[in-house]
Amino acid sequence: MKFKQLSVLALALLLPFATMAEDMLAPSQTPSRPKNMIIMIGDGMGPSYTTAYRYFKDNPDTEEVEQTVFDRLLVGMASTYPARVSGYVTDSAAAATALATGSKSYNGAISVDLQKQPLETIMEKAKKRGLSTGVAVTCQVNHATPAAFLTHNESRKNYDEIASSYINTDADVILGGGQKYFTPAMLDAFKTKGYQVLNDFNQLATVTQPKVLGLFADVQLPWVVDEPDAHRLTAMTNKALELMSQNTQGFVLMIEGSQIDWAGHDNDIVAAMGEMDEFAHAVEAVEQFVRNHPDTLMVVTADHNTGGLSIGRDGKYAWDPEVIQAVKASPETLAATAIANDNWQQPLADGLGFALTDDLQARFDHARMQGKDVLAQALKHEIDLRSNTGWTTGGHTGVDVQVFASGPGAELFIGNQDNTDIANKLASLLPKPKKSTAATVPAATPGNG
Amino acid sequence: MKFKQLSVLALALLLPFATMAEDMLAPSQTPSRPKNMIIMIGDGMGPSYTTAYRYFKDNPDTEEVEQTVFDRLLVGMASTYPARVSGYVTDSAAAATALATGSKSYNGAISVDLQKQPLETIMEKAKKRGLSTGVAVTCQVNHATPAAFLTHNESRKNYDEIASSYINTDADVILGGGQKYFTPAMLDAFKTKGYQVLNDFNQLATVTQPKVLGLFADVQLPWVVDEPDAHRLTAMTNKALELMSQNTQGFVLMIEGSQIDWAGHDNDIVAAMGEMDEFAHAVEAVEQFVRNHPDTLMVVTADHNTGGLSIGRDGKYAWDPEVIQAVKASPETLAATAIANDNWQQPLADGLGFALTDDLQARFDHARMQGKDVLAQALKHEIDLRSNTGWTTGGHTGVDVQVFASGPGAELFIGNQDNTDIANKLASLLPKPKKSTAATVPAATPGNG
Ligand SMILES: [Zn+2]
Ligand SMILES: [Zn+2]
Repeated sequence: MKFKQLSVLALALLLPFATMAEDMLAPSQTPSRPKNMIIMIGDGMGPSYTTAYRYFKDNPDTEEVEQTVFDRLLVGMASTYPARVSGYVTDSAAAATALATGSKSYNGAISVDLQKQPLETIMEKAKKRGLSTGVAVTCQVNHATPAAFLTHNESRKNYDEIASSYINTDADVILGGGQKYFTPAMLDAFKTKGYQVLNDFNQLATVTQPKVLGLFADVQLPWVVDEPDAHRLTAMTNKALELMSQNTQGFVLMIEGSQIDWAGHDNDIVAAMGEMDEFAHAVEAVEQFVRNHPDTLMVVTADHNTGGLSIGRDGKYAWDPEVIQAVKASPETLAATAIANDNWQQPLADGLGFALTDDLQARFDHARMQGKDVLAQALKHEIDLRSNTGWTTGGHTGVDVQVFASGPGAELFIGNQDNTDIANKLASLLPKPKKSTAATVPAATPGNG
Repeated sequence: MKFKQLSVLALALLLPFATMAEDMLAPSQTPSRPKNMIIMIGDGMGPSYTTAYRYFKDNPDTEEVEQTVFDRLLVGMASTYPARVSGYVTDSAAAATALATGSKSYNGAISVDLQKQPLETIMEKAKKRGLSTGVAVTCQVNHATPAAFLTHNESRKNYDEIASSYINTDADVILGGGQKYFTPAMLDAFKTKGYQVLNDFNQLATVTQPKVLGLFADVQLPWVVDEPDAHRLTAMTNKALELMSQNTQGFVLMIEGSQIDWAGHDNDIVAAMGEMDEFAHAVEAVEQFVRNHPDTLMVVTADHNTGGLSIGRDGKYAWDPEVIQAVKASPETLAATAIANDNWQQPLADGLGFALTDDLQARFDHARMQGKDVLAQALKHEIDLRSNTGWTTGGHTGVDVQVFASGPGAELFIGNQDNTDIANKLASLLPKPKKSTAATVPAATPGNG
C-alpha cells in the first residue's frame, strides 16, 4: 500500500479561511516529528458509535448539537479488512496486528504473518530506539488488542501463552484486567525484573515511577455504566502518561476502550454508550496532554465496527437517547438484581427509568424465570425498541472506521487510508534506530530495577 | 455553527511526508477561489455504502484491495441531523435544505425555515452573481433533493407545485426523470423561455447549448443494474458540464445519485451496488473535469444513511460481494420476469447466478403465488443471506456521512462538520454579489432565448 497522497494539503495555506486554533502553537514552536506517540483504539467503535455518542451527550435544551471530542479531532477514515484469506471482515486480532505492525494477517493472528512468523511491532521498534512503551486497557491485558502490541502468537486464544510472554516485552506500563492469567510465580518474575505489581485500583495513584504491571480485575474491568464515576480508563491513561513522560527519549503508549466492542457483541446500547463515554473521557485527557506537550502525537481509531449498530430502525426516522440516559445500570446488572430479588418489579422499573405496564411485567416475568441472560436480553430488546436502536449481528461488520489525530504529524492521517497505513505512518515518525541497542534492552527510564 | 477550525492545516507544509499528486497544479497556478462548483449527493450513501462498494469492485485475484474514487477523494465527514423539532434522523428534504441553504429545517421542508419562509439557496445566490445553475439526477427532477436546490415549498409531497415552480428558477440545466409532473402547457412555457425540452435520452447528445429541460422517464430513471451500460447519470453529468462551462462567469451544478437511497429503502443490495457504481462513474467524470479545469471545486457527500446496511450480519465475520456481482438484474425485474413466465425456474436461477435447490424452488414458488413484491422480497432475502448483508430499517439512520472534495477550497472540508457547514463553506467561495443583478434575471449564457 502506498501512503495516501496528501496533495490537497499543499493548498492549505493559500486560503484565508483556515484559521489557527488558539490551542495550537505557531509553526516555529512545533516540532515536525513527535517525541511521544499515543495510539488510542476504541474497539468496535464504528461511525455509528461516535455519531450516536454525540446525540447521547446532546443537551436537548439547546438548538445546537454540541460537538464531542471525536468531532474536534476527526481527520480521516481507515479500511479494516484482514489478509485476503480471512475475507473482508476483520477480528480484533488481525486488526490490532495491522495497527501494531503495518501488515495484514489472518483473523486470530497476534502480530504474526500468514506463515505464523513474528511481525515487528511499533512497540519493539520503539524499544530499539530507547523509547518507553506501555498499554492501558479495560479488558484483560492479554486480550487480542494489547497482545498484538506487546507480543506474538499464532492465536489470540492462547491467553496463557500470551500472558507468559509479557515478562519478555520490557513494556514499562501494563494496566488493565486479567489477574486470572498471571500466577504468583509469574508476578514474582515481574517483581524481580523491577516491576511494581498492583491488584487494587486504589494503589495506582501511589505509583511514582515505571515499571508497573497493574491487574485490576480477574478478567475485564466492570461495565462503566455500572460504576460511572470510577473513570478507570482515564485514571490509567493519566498515570501511564505521567510515568512514561519520565523517559526523556519519548514513549509509545497504546490505550484501548476495549469493551465498546463487548457491548456491541451483546447488542447492548446502554453499556455501549457507557463505554463510549469513558473512552471519550480518556481521549479528552490525552487531548489535554497533547495541548500541554506539543511534542506529542495522538492518533485515535477503531479496529473495526461491531454489532451493525444503527441510529434508527424499523422504518421510524427517530432515535431517542433519553431512553438510554434514563437506564441506571447495565441490563446485565439489572437482570442479575431482579433475579436475586423477589420484589423485583419496582426496582427494575426504577433501574430502567420507565414504568412497567402489565404486559411488559408479564413478559419480563417470563424471561426472568429463564435466567439472567434471557431477562437481560428482554431488557435490551425493550430499550432498543423505545430508543429505536438497530443491530444486525452479534459479530463485527466491515464498514470503514474513523481516524482522529492531534499533534505533530496529525496531518498525515487526513483522508482515506488503510489500517496498515496508520501503523506505517506512525513508524515513519519514530526516530532513527540506535545502532548499539538491542530490542530486549530496557529503555533507560528511572524505574528500571 | 462555526466553521471547523482548520488549525491542523497550518502544519501541513512543515513535514516532508506530504507529497504533491501529479494531477494537482503547483500553488502559483491554482486559484484560491473556484470559478465553478459541483455538488454531488449520493442519496442515502452512508459509510457502509462506500465501503461495501470498495469490496464489491475489488479484484479478488490480487492481494491488495483497489482504491475507489471515494477513497481518493475522502476529506471529512458531516452530521446530518435536522432541526430539533424533527429529532436526530433526517429525511432527504431537510438534508437537502441544509446542503442548499446552510440552515436546518424540519423533515419534509423544501428550502423553507421552521416558519415555512423561503431560505435563500446556493443556486439563487449563484444566479445573483451571474453564474449558471443546474441539476442532474436519476429520480424525478421535482423530488426532494433537486427541489431543495431549485425552489421552496412547505412540503416535499407537493410534487405538482414544485414542478410548476421550476419555470421561475432560471436554472440552465434540469436533467432527470418526472415527465408525469410536467403538462404540455408547462413544457410550452419552458420552450417559450428558451429551453430545449427533451424526453428521449438519445436527444441529449445533440444539445449544444443551454437552456435545457430533459425529462427521460415518467418518474425515476431505470435501475442501473437493469441497464448497466446506459451510464445515464454520467452522460447527464458530462453534458451538464459541457453546457454550463459556456458561462465565463462560472456555474454551480448539483448532481444526485438519487436511487442509492431507493435501493436502501428497499433493502436491495443488488440495486444499491448498481446505483453506487453509476454514481462512482459520475464522480470520476467530475474528478476528470476538475483535473482539466483547476478553477473547479467538487464536493461529494450524502444527505443521510439509508437502510442500516451492514457489511456482515448474524454473527458471521464475512461479506461475499461475488454473490451480488453474479446477479444479472434487479430483484424487482427478476421477480417480474418470473411471474410473467410459466417456466420461470431456470431463467430465475440464471438471473440470480446460483442454482435453485428444491427447498429454495419451493420457497420462491410460494412467494411467486403472492405476487411480484413478495417474490422480490424472497429473492432479496436469499441474496442477503448468501452475501451476508444486513439491514435494520426501511427508512433512514442517523450515522454521519462522508465528505469528499477536490479542487480549490477542497481543504475547507477536511475533518468533521455539519451538513449546514458544507453549504456555508460553498457559499463563502462564491464571488461577491453583483449589485445591480436581481435574482430572477437569467445568467448571460449563450443559450438564453
Ligand atoms: Zn469484537
Ligand atoms: Zn430516503
